[in-house]
Amino acid sequence: MPDPMNQQVLLAARPQGMPTPDNFRIVQAPVPEPGDGQLLLEILFLSLDPYMRGRMDAGKSYAKPVEVGAVMEAGTVARVLLSRHPGFVPGDIVLSYSGWQRYALADGASVRKLDPALAPPSTALGVLGMPGFTAWAGLLQIGQPKPGETVVVAAASGAVGSVVGQIARIKGARAVGIAGGPEKCAFVRDVLGFDAVIDHRAPDFAQQLAQACPGGIDVYFENVGGKVWEAVIPLLNDFARIPVCGLIAQYNGLPQAEPGPDKLARFMGEVLKKSLSMRGFIQREFAAMQPAFYQEAAGWITDGRLRYREDIVAGLDHAPAAFIDLLRGRNFGKLLVKLAD
Amino acid sequence: MPDPMNQQVLLAARPQGMPTPDNFRIVQAPVPEPGDGQLLLEILFLSLDPYMRGRMDAGKSYAKPVEVGAVMEAGTVARVLLSRHPGFVPGDIVLSYSGWQRYALADGASVRKLDPALAPPSTALGVLGMPGFTAWAGLLQIGQPKPGETVVVAAASGAVGSVVGQIARIKGARAVGIAGGPEKCAFVRDVLGFDAVIDHRAPDFAQQLAQACPGGIDVYFENVGGKVWEAVIPLLNDFARIPVCGLIAQYNGLPQAEPGPDKLARFMGEVLKKSLSMRGFIQREFAAMQPAFYQEAAGWITDGRLRYREDIVAGLDHAPAAFIDLLRGRNFGKLLVKLAD
Repeated sequence: MPDPMNQQVLLAARPQGMPTPDNFRIVQAPVPEPGDGQLLLEILFLSLDPYMRGRMDAGKSYAKPVEVGAVMEAGTVARVLLSRHPGFVPGDIVLSYSGWQRYALADGASVRKLDPALAPPSTALGVLGMPGFTAWAGLLQIGQPKPGETVVVAAASGAVGSVVGQIARIKGARAVGIAGGPEKCAFVRDVLGFDAVIDHRAPDFAQQLAQACPGGIDVYFENVGGKVWEAVIPLLNDFARIPVCGLIAQYNGLPQAEPGPDKLARFMGEVLKKSLSMRGFIQREFAAMQPAFYQEAAGWITDGRLRYREDIVAGLDHAPAAFIDLLRGRNFGKLLVKLAD
Repeated sequence: MPDPMNQQVLLAARPQGMPTPDNFRIVQAPVPEPGDGQLLLEILFLSLDPYMRGRMDAGKSYAKPVEVGAVMEAGTVARVLLSRHPGFVPGDIVLSYSGWQRYALADGASVRKLDPALAPPSTALGVLGMPGFTAWAGLLQIGQPKPGETVVVAAASGAVGSVVGQIARIKGARAVGIAGGPEKCAFVRDVLGFDAVIDHRAPDFAQQLAQACPGGIDVYFENVGGKVWEAVIPLLNDFARIPVCGLIAQYNGLPQAEPGPDKLARFMGEVLKKSLSMRGFIQREFAAMQPAFYQEAAGWITDGRLRYREDIVAGLDHAPAAFIDLLRGRNFGKLLVKLAD
């Protein structure tokens, strides 16, 4: 049975630039009672992902913002405590979208039952979940790497980037990763098996990237923006493809313009001269392909070709600080908050 | 029989910014003799198109630059004077790529015979030629307008823009054109039948564009860049498509960056938030579709749904000034230089 009290992390105030702990408020609330068709869930793992920064801002995007005073949103893996839905019994493990809290109600129709015998349930938030599917769909549907081509991805030790590079290699392309610091770079090269890896902290980062891509770049999977993107542009080959999945480097504010030619005008010239393709996407539009993804990715995990790393923080109290660290690139692997065993 | 002397326009020097008459040199040269398999052609019409500005610069692009001292390149309609190819006889009218000159040799295999009974031969350089095919391929293959959507195109009275908007309407979309000055705007609205037209010289151009697109913009066919593009960006709908065909506003130099957020970073944010697609292209990559285009476009011309206007300048001497005027937007319709009857 649950504790009598739930614990929740609310959006206390909209951040200006990088979020601070003051933007969050941790509160107690009664554990709710499930109605007909509902489940009472105990959250086991909470996923922290860069897209949540966008939900903290007001204004038009592809998803509604979190309201000030509301529970922060997140994908979660949870255990069913009470079921008033015929498809579930207490003890079932489910994937839900229950947010930053210890207990939650969910309609039985809105959750997906997980089989812990097939894969650790936490993978439903990472390599076999939204981040993995984002990588798979963006790389294969938009990036369309061909054997021998060069695929570049940043945040290469992270939940999405790590999958992008490994799938690129499975499809016969060359994977060049970008990561921050020697430990992550070693992981990307030695454990994930990328063909090359560059540390974006290196003072000669742009030159190193050019050296790692002697044949140019055919697919750039964009998840960071900023100086990585600017270093990539001159290396793009004719007919290069650029799936745009995220821009973590600019989620907390846009860079000022610099003297010299307007970068947008210069980029448009590259688009024209090189017949570039760029496509922003969110994984939801490819939802019909999820079964194909699960099947393919589960097979790659089983045969050891798709590896993953989880970065697990314990306790809901630590979620705000862990999320801020994520935005600063301080996580190492798929960031999860563990709330219960 | 030809004059004993040919006349040619050479690239005298690479332009800095907007070309000037000094960048061209008009010379006399002997009329060449055709070898086996060759034709001696008398040029009737010479096509002037914005892409030629790019060929005047050194440096990597999708096509090799014109060398300094070489004849300026151009598509041409010509009459066969002498034939040493079994497929042609004197008097045949052909489409060739013979450049800015009065006489030229061509391999018979490199030209296409035109049937003057089907359409005026000059249309092979415009509405039924490269500009028309560029519009058709970019709009339908990349832009993919759906009935009821809004398609925006600039240079709407020009060779490409006029075809983009008319095909958009044929496909059931709303066509909003942008043109310079009341005369061109009236033509776009009253003769070409666009749903709305905006004069880009209006001081409140951006507001007028927003008012003309109350449901936002689904397809922006980019052929100008600059301030038109910047006014379009905030109006783009989710999943909008942007075929990038040309950037005439920046062919003669890039704008300086302005204070405030970097425009490229801001645009990348829009690509992500709105799941935008952008694709640079040149018509050559769609060459296999040319027969489908000819058939469809010729039908639309016959039944009056696809109209065109030619802006004809007489005499090779005037080609450099006419080309500079084209880059300044002073032509009105497809610009051609007429060299012979």
